[in-house]
Amino acid sequence: MSSAFDEKLKEFKEYVSKIEYLNSAISVLYWDMRVGMPKKGINFRSDVLGYLSTEAYRMQTSDAVKEFVTYFEGAQDLDKVTSSMVEKIKREYDKNKKIPEDRFKEYVILTSQAEDKWTQAKNEKNFEIFKPYLEKIVEMNKEFLNYWGYEGNKYNTLLDFYEMGMTVEKLDKVFGELKDAIIEILDKIKASNYTPDDSFFKGDYSKESQEELGREALKAIGYDFDAGRLDETMHPFTIEFCNRDVRITTKYHEDDLRPSLFSCIHEGGHAIYEQNIPDELNGTTLGTGVSMGIHESQSRFYENIIGRSKEFWKYFYSKLIKIYPQFENVSLEDFYKGINIVKPSLIRVDADELTYSLHIIIRYEIEKMLINDEIKVEDLPMVWKEKYKEYLNVEPKDDSQGVLQDIHWAGGSFGYFPSYALGNLYGAQFFNKMKQNIKDIDEKIEKGELSVVKEWLSENIHKHGSVYKPSEILKMATGEELTAKYFIEYLKEKYSKIYNF
Amino acid sequence: MSSAFDEKLKEFKEYVSKIEYLNSAISVLYWDMRVGMPKKGINFRSDVLGYLSTEAYRMQTSDAVKEFVTYFEGAQDLDKVTSSMVEKIKREYDKNKKIPEDRFKEYVILTSQAEDKWTQAKNEKNFEIFKPYLEKIVEMNKEFLNYWGYEGNKYNTLLDFYEMGMTVEKLDKVFGELKDAIIEILDKIKASNYTPDDSFFKGDYSKESQEELGREALKAIGYDFDAGRLDETMHPFTIEFCNRDVRITTKYHEDDLRPSLFSCIHEGGHAIYEQNIPDELNGTTLGTGVSMGIHESQSRFYENIIGRSKEFWKYFYSKLIKIYPQFENVSLEDFYKGINIVKPSLIRVDADELTYSLHIIIRYEIEKMLINDEIKVEDLPMVWKEKYKEYLNVEPKDDSQGVLQDIHWAGGSFGYFPSYALGNLYGAQFFNKMKQNIKDIDEKIEKGELSVVKEWLSENIHKHGSVYKPSEILKMATGEELTAKYFIEYLKEKYSKIYNF
Repeated sequence: MSSAFDEKLKEFKEYVSKIEYLNSAISVLYWDMRVGMPKKGINFRSDVLGYLSTEAYRMQTSDAVKEFVTYFEGAQDLDKVTSSMVEKIKREYDKNKKIPEDRFKEYVILTSQAEDKWTQAKNEKNFEIFKPYLEKIVEMNKEFLNYWGYEGNKYNTLLDFYEMGMTVEKLDKVFGELKDAIIEILDKIKASNYTPDDSFFKGDYSKESQEELGREALKAIGYDFDAGRLDETMHPFTIEFCNRDVRITTKYHEDDLRPSLFSCIHEGGHAIYEQNIPDELNGTTLGTGVSMGIHESQSRFYENIIGRSKEFWKYFYSKLIKIYPQFENVSLEDFYKGINIVKPSLIRVDADELTYSLHIIIRYEIEKMLINDEIKVEDLPMVWKEKYKEYLNVEPKDDSQGVLQDIHWAGGSFGYFPSYALGNLYGAQFFNKMKQNIKDIDEKIEKGELSVVKEWLSENIHKHGSVYKPSEILKMATGEELTAKYFIEYLKEKYSKIYNF
Repeated sequence: MSSAFDEKLKEFKEYVSKIEYLNSAISVLYWDMRVGMPKKGINFRSDVLGYLSTEAYRMQTSDAVKEFVTYFEGAQDLDKVTSSMVEKIKREYDKNKKIPEDRFKEYVILTSQAEDKWTQAKNEKNFEIFKPYLEKIVEMNKEFLNYWGYEGNKYNTLLDFYEMGMTVEKLDKVFGELKDAIIEILDKIKASNYTPDDSFFKGDYSKESQEELGREALKAIGYDFDAGRLDETMHPFTIEFCNRDVRITTKYHEDDLRPSLFSCIHEGGHAIYEQNIPDELNGTTLGTGVSMGIHESQSRFYENIIGRSKEFWKYFYSKLIKIYPQFENVSLEDFYKGINIVKPSLIRVDADELTYSLHIIIRYEIEKMLINDEIKVEDLPMVWKEKYKEYLNVEPKDDSQGVLQDIHWAGGSFGYFPSYALGNLYGAQFFNKMKQNIKDIDEKIEKGELSVVKEWLSENIHKHGSVYKPSEILKMATGEELTAKYFIEYLKEKYSKIYNF
């Protein structure tokens, strides 16, 4: 490469670094706002965040970016990091700049109002309050799709924002298989007439003791507390300021230890991903998890495949008993069944491992229909009820338990939900390969040697950051394309043992 | 005013708001770094802070600022807020832009290196390590003074950076009187042959209990926890993100409750100042304390004049006993004497109320001589020892207890130290007037009605933010110019009673 090229690349990376610095600052301010800001600080903090976000947006959509992209797109023989960097920056630029500026601004204001209205509607259990806003959001998304363009199904473009390369064609296949399999397993569970006991979980668990348990679990799976911290918040999340400062938050329910424990392990999965992306990718925009789906594959893998496995609890149960001696009277077997109890329910975030994906598939089917004009926004409460009845055999009493339960649509995030279920599929595919690579993995997990798990994930997934597409990472790590096969096998094996069918 | 003027003013305030937003973000990132950042986050955080600081500096010294200043300086009949705003922005602009850019950059690098060298020198108790850096810093300050200009004494310009309008002439007078008075009181204390007992303070105080005590004290003086928070750190400080988010930090010594208690009250004084500056000054750069000296007048007033008064403890002692029942065996009188014990010592930050100002006066005299070429940097350890011997009758064993104890000079902060003692003088002047305005103030404090104190300070000092100069605030609040009289009277009255002379 010429020295002019090197100079330009240096300039480009410096420019991109500044956007990263701004985004890191925004994240710190956001974290602080959620975790510890005194309540009177909110107005000024919103102004500061508004200013910094506008600056970051301005930098991401500037003519300078257009120039860089034009320069590097035309360049020969780019190394992989640079070409991925250019591609990612271009995607972001196009997503924003293809929309006329006044329409884009209108949309930002609309979604911000819609989030308020959603909150009100949810509190008042009344979809009508939210409906006109959601209608407008859906309309504008359809309008934007004309600017963005699409191949095949219109919904593909929205999917692609969160999971590059994902299509309706691929999802219809894997989600269709998964849906049938889960419903079949659910039927067998029902027929088994068996329900594990989980009454022993009810108790009085102080925040302090739960925090101690969460920390133990995070240490066990390999979360690095020198590059992160654990705090309490209303709605648990993970946030990274850089790969060496990735923070977890959780919420404690004082009558049950499970929500915060598994939320810690889930967020720990996200955080371990970010913590193990190499320093070299700083300043390239690629030093972060590649997609929502791959991210969820890490969190749901740790939460369920590891965190709800018998192997892990053979190691970890004594640590739990040390903090909560009352579990000395509960056998490991009963405990294991208790954390894997299956109960079809109305609320996605409270769903068990087995039925969780059905919640997602319902949302996927609905979004696809909405975007393709097969249903109207006004039909949503009814369609929602029908699908929940059909797939899960439960019926919401009101909209707050139904179509209003998630905030995503108020923010215009169509195409996001599938990531959660994709995470389950990816995770099982990774685990299948991991077991082939590490023959005695079960014994290792039972001994608490979870570093082998983290190392496999780091070597096959984390280290790539966002350099490769999700499908490329999957292929490189497992040698296969996306399939529902391994997750279905895993579910069948696990739940047939627990429910004896 | 014309609408073109209003338009320009709006533009100016928007510009200035952005600088405030940046500085607020910088403060949040700094606070987080000191209070809770995981250790591996330091490098990236430094980069982010470096970037944001450069941006803020760029905005403060841009041609746009020059244009605004030129426009508004020429305008007729500006309202007070606008003219103060223009003046403050111009001061900052001139301070930076009068120095040739390459020299300024060199200086920034130099002070950053000097801070490292100071740390090393202090640890190794060896001034020689730090000396060449300090020599260069002094040289460059003298060089810069030729660019900045000065009236009368060269040191006036440096004083003016921290305390607008302060001069050597004024300081020589008040510090001279104060020095003589303190030395006289010290002689009487020595002659009294009495030392209060403070052995009962030694004990084992958990961090949790000290935090509780600190919170109680902060609530008592009127710190608003809905607009702030208290956290632990290595070196206590107060930081404001805006007037509605002003945070305090403290450090706990588990063998003595005094350091963190009085540090909380001290920082509380700074914070109450910032919390009570009106919202209207947001976005004008004037929504913050006007000077270091006035700021210290608030913190040292709360720490000493209130926090170490018998009246306050008549109210607060029962709260302390509730947390530490062992003090039931210590009389209020003994406790009061114990928190006011006078012990000339080597370290400024550990000094008692009486001798504290002497530490400052020594630094003032030394800085003045350095800047006026009356001594050289190499003379510092010797001059330091002589003055400590003469004024305080103590002698440092090594440089870390002497000339190396404070970091200020490593950062080039000449002219800053006097603020601390000025705070004592201002504070006593304010208190004198407050007592005239609130006849039954002693009774009110004894009953814990400290809101009258806060209201007086807010009405006379806080509400002005940085709209008026320190001397103007002093004059408006008390009707008088700066004088050492009231602080000396206060010291004489207080310590003659404690030491019976």
